[in-house]
Amino acid sequence: MRVIRQKGEYSHVFSRYIEPIAKVEPGEEVLLHTQDAFMGLIQSENDNLEEMRRKRRGPNPQTGPLYIEGARTGDTLKVHILNIEPDRDFAVSAVHKFFGGLTPNKYTRMINVASSEKIYIYRFDEEGMLRHDDFLRFPWKPFMGTIATAPDLEALSTLTPFENGGNMDSPDVKPGNIVYLPVSVDGAYFFTGDCHAIQGEGELCGTALEIPAKVTLKFEIIKSKKITWPRIESPDEYMVVGSARPMEDAARIAYAELIEWMMEFGWDRLDAYQALTQVGKLYCANMVDTYYSMVAKVNKSFAERRR
Amino acid sequence: MRVIRQKGEYSHVFSRYIEPIAKVEPGEEVLLHTQDAFMGLIQSENDNLEEMRRKRRGPNPQTGPLYIEGARTGDTLKVHILNIEPDRDFAVSAVHKFFGGLTPNKYTRMINVASSEKIYIYRFDEEGMLRHDDFLRFPWKPFMGTIATAPDLEALSTLTPFENGGNMDSPDVKPGNIVYLPVSVDGAYFFTGDCHAIQGEGELCGTALEIPAKVTLKFEIIKSKKITWPRIESPDEYMVVGSARPMEDAARIAYAELIEWMMEFGWDRLDAYQALTQVGKLYCANMVDTYYSMVAKVNKSFAERRR
Amino acid sequence: MRVIRQKGEYSHVFSRYIEPIAKVEPGEEVLLHTQDAFMGLIQSENDNLEEMRRKRRGPNPQTGPLYIEGARTGDTLKVHILNIEPDRDFAVSAVHKFFGGLTPNKYTRMINVASSEKIYIYRFDEEGMLRHDDFLRFPWKPFMGTIATAPDLEALSTLTPFENGGNMDSPDVKPGNIVYLPVSVDGAYFFTGDCHAIQGEGELCGTALEIPAKVTLKFEIIKSKKITWPRIESPDEYMVVGSARPMEDAARIAYAELIEWMMEFGWDRLDAYQALTQVGKLYCANMVDTYYSMVAKVNKSFAERRR
Amino acid sequence: MRVIRQKGEYSHVFSRYIEPIAKVEPGEEVLLHTQDAFMGLIQSENDNLEEMRRKRRGPNPQTGPLYIEGARTGDTLKVHILNIEPDRDFAVSAVHKFFGGLTPNKYTRMINVASSEKIYIYRFDEEGMLRHDDFLRFPWKPFMGTIATAPDLEALSTLTPFENGGNMDSPDVKPGNIVYLPVSVDGAYFFTGDCHAIQGEGELCGTALEIPAKVTLKFEIIKSKKITWPRIESPDEYMVVGSARPMEDAARIAYAELIEWMMEFGWDRLDAYQALTQVGKLYCANMVDTYYSMVAKVNKSFAERRR
Repeated sequence: MRVIRQKGEYSHVFSRYIEPIAKVEPGEEVLLHTQDAFMGLIQSENDNLEEMRRKRRGPNPQTGPLYIEGARTGDTLKVHILNIEPDRDFAVSAVHKFFGGLTPNKYTRMINVASSEKIYIYRFDEEGMLRHDDFLRFPWKPFMGTIATAPDLEALSTLTPFENGGNMDSPDVKPGNIVYLPVSVDGAYFFTGDCHAIQGEGELCGTALEIPAKVTLKFEIIKSKKITWPRIESPDEYMVVGSARPMEDAARIAYAELIEWMMEFGWDRLDAYQALTQVGKLYCANMVDTYYSMVAKVNKSFAERRR
Repeated sequence: MRVIRQKGEYSHVFSRYIEPIAKVEPGEEVLLHTQDAFMGLIQSENDNLEEMRRKRRGPNPQTGPLYIEGARTGDTLKVHILNIEPDRDFAVSAVHKFFGGLTPNKYTRMINVASSEKIYIYRFDEEGMLRHDDFLRFPWKPFMGTIATAPDLEALSTLTPFENGGNMDSPDVKPGNIVYLPVSVDGAYFFTGDCHAIQGEGELCGTALEIPAKVTLKFEIIKSKKITWPRIESPDEYMVVGSARPMEDAARIAYAELIEWMMEFGWDRLDAYQALTQVGKLYCANMVDTYYSMVAKVNKSFAERRR
Repeated sequence: MRVIRQKGEYSHVFSRYIEPIAKVEPGEEVLLHTQDAFMGLIQSENDNLEEMRRKRRGPNPQTGPLYIEGARTGDTLKVHILNIEPDRDFAVSAVHKFFGGLTPNKYTRMINVASSEKIYIYRFDEEGMLRHDDFLRFPWKPFMGTIATAPDLEALSTLTPFENGGNMDSPDVKPGNIVYLPVSVDGAYFFTGDCHAIQGEGELCGTALEIPAKVTLKFEIIKSKKITWPRIESPDEYMVVGSARPMEDAARIAYAELIEWMMEFGWDRLDAYQALTQVGKLYCANMVDTYYSMVAKVNKSFAERRR
Repeated sequence: MRVIRQKGEYSHVFSRYIEPIAKVEPGEEVLLHTQDAFMGLIQSENDNLEEMRRKRRGPNPQTGPLYIEGARTGDTLKVHILNIEPDRDFAVSAVHKFFGGLTPNKYTRMINVASSEKIYIYRFDEEGMLRHDDFLRFPWKPFMGTIATAPDLEALSTLTPFENGGNMDSPDVKPGNIVYLPVSVDGAYFFTGDCHAIQGEGELCGTALEIPAKVTLKFEIIKSKKITWPRIESPDEYMVVGSARPMEDAARIAYAELIEWMMEFGWDRLDAYQALTQVGKLYCANMVDTYYSMVAKVNKSFAERRR
């Protein structure tokens, strides 16, 4: 299998203004090496988060962009997540002073900031669990925190989840699932990174179990099909990820776009609205990033009834 | 088993200012008859929603208040949901002009309102499914949309989910689970109603499969234990329901209170924050009511590790 | 002039479930004595806010309800604010641990709360200014923080601004202006209190210069005219106060209702929408209460062009 | 005076990835020609908004970037707005189907979109007023809707107001006032455009009176002074513009940063928080863009008391 490592600096933006690091054919299996969200700068619980932030150019270093041969503006990129392996024997999480779901931050400003930060190092134990101590001990349930194509004109921070995918932090971006992303630039300019060894819904404190990874992917192109927001397909479910603030706008986007998807199966708009009222699922992927992400889901067999 | 039917009018507020309809002993099993959210006024798809709204005094008619013997301000009421049976052979849902998750409404005002409304009647078919047509056909997965104690001083609309429980529209208020509510008035003044035959997460269009029901409950009192927000316990999980706007504030409340609950098991605050980041679940119960409700969950065996 | 003092306890809810303290005729001038938001319990900067909160039954004690003769459900109450005089020689403000615009609070929960509280006492100096020190020294610009009728069925906390008026904290509820409130109960059940000696837009830290006051009012009834949200009329401007969360919903309500008001002058809906885009004003009255309040304004001479 | 016209295409992003169109010395007066938000494509009320959107590459075409000689990352750019003249004899506004404060839009999705759009053309009349008809007739009160430096790494849509300034739509970006912007790239990469002949607070329907303009500016550099959010200085007031969603986060940023500014004059943090509670002003600049903008203000003589 073809192995791709980042050339030069990792990217801190999802951007068309960067030279692709490789060209990839649809159907080709590629293994990408990704760095962790801390750029590998945290190695011990005695390290200093402030110093780490000063050293790195930005958060969430990305591997990419990959130029996907044949992808044209207006197509949809279908990304098969085939496998994710750890690329280090430990993962890192941290509670930050000025970032997190229950911490004052850049957007939700408070008169006081938190007084302390804390680093958690998790090492794989003999049972393959990531262990900090007897209580903080978790299984390996990896997914890619960021997965994106480049936007049309903007270069977006790799902290941002949006129409192009990005930092959605959805645990459903995992092996066995398919991610659909809009192609807004010829070649798609694909990025991924920010692997999480495990993460709950919301990514509450702002950092999951961050770890460098080897992710195996395969791309397909759906010609002349335009989607507006990222979609995910699991063996059983169709999902849309909406990312916005406040969180209810993210929820509205996710469900409104899932209705659009159901209409592709022949559903009438109002009936799809009615159906998702009764059987839709709606969870929070992140409550910490520049936009919040909500994931709306429907069972495939239900959605396909109309076909 | 003791059967309780509403005396006089159903209540449209969660309120201490109403005379209790019955006194109930802790440990006693009671079967309550509840009316549907439309006050039983919608019987056919040709009925008129506008007329229904004019006829009823308010939404979500409640059975109650029950005076729970021995409950004192500062206690916690533990409500075992034992069983829910339908009390009619059909359920009703509707898309409203001025209410719903993707509809302009009282709060999210728009220059235009929707032009049409639509009623959906679902009848139990021979397989026990609720059937509108071949596509809109759902299993019986009942829960109580509203379950509440009376607030200290306020009388709150039965559309409102808040610290006292209320219109949370959480599918986890179902048979086999336990709901914990704060007691803010001697006797607790318990209300329930608004049974949903089934509902997805978010209650997207604003009305689930609404149906009158017979709900069997048993109460316990936890003396001198004060909780701030409603808690739910399933066989496997601990949950807190936070209700607020915007939705991220509901999420913050749910997780902040779940941290408080974990601290009762011996968790340190920061470690609980870290733990829920990795294994917490967070879904939207309603995105349509006066406050949005988010439910944060943690697996019981995980939370109890510290004990 | 008729002087009205609270009988029995001040109210901590806007509620129809309370016995009126007086009956007032339309056209009659009445002087009401109001208590400050701290119930008069803070007298020195060495007092303890925690203790104050324990002692009082609730925030924002209200004088009322007044039964307004002739007011019937479906009318509008027109309240002329004639005069406000201080009823004490000092005012009090405070920075709270768990309340305020830049402080974690009941809704916007954080993992840490603020560590300290601070009381500010302002005394009238010889120039009639309220003086804490050389820098914190403000003129007397009084208004009523709360002004309300009772809701139809609910009893709402006196911290809450809503359709019935309430805790809007709008500096435009001042002498010389008129407040319009919906009548939802026969007799209107009028309340006022929470006088602020001065306050900026937003009431940033959550407490203005709180002071007991003597407020002189006169009531009129507009028969069979139903308004949905509170309106204010100054000599030059028409205003609507929208109260909701998130703040954009409050803004939407305020402008949507101001469009309704302009339509009473003959404006077409779209043209009013266009007009307010170019000449509307929109300020934040409070960013700290249970709902945020936004005030939308239009110049009277502009709005009346269509007449 | 030096006149600068756009070379090549107008920009639809605030971006460092674009070649500067001119180099400007601090102290030099320059007159920039700017295009209107519709790229000049709307000339009549019979034009078609849909077609206009298809033709242009993006919204809010910008003149720039200007390379400001001597500006280095970490400095602050001080922009004197000297004059704004119309560059056409009419202005254009429009009500859009899928954009606006009371219209379903990309973020606040609804099941139905508005059914109609409407264009308003305003021509200068003999009194210098912009006149659509007898009722929709407004004075010339021009300001620049967008004014920005380039962000560090991102390229942001010209619809976006953020830390770098951008599409704030604040009527205070007007002749006689000074705008302070952070320099995040050597040369600052300055952009401006989107002149509004007049606009109310909030820019309710999403488009003010849009007009091409000639704007005269002068730049100064404050060396080694880093500001985080844009500041505005009028002859009487200090202001900060916070842009975020939900709107309360924009308000929090604006006031939190105004406290920071007051601390530069010697104020203690808590005392500044207290002071702005009593005398701060807080209005909404836009309730329609990708982020909402709130402007917090304090009187200069008040803020400078501590100096």
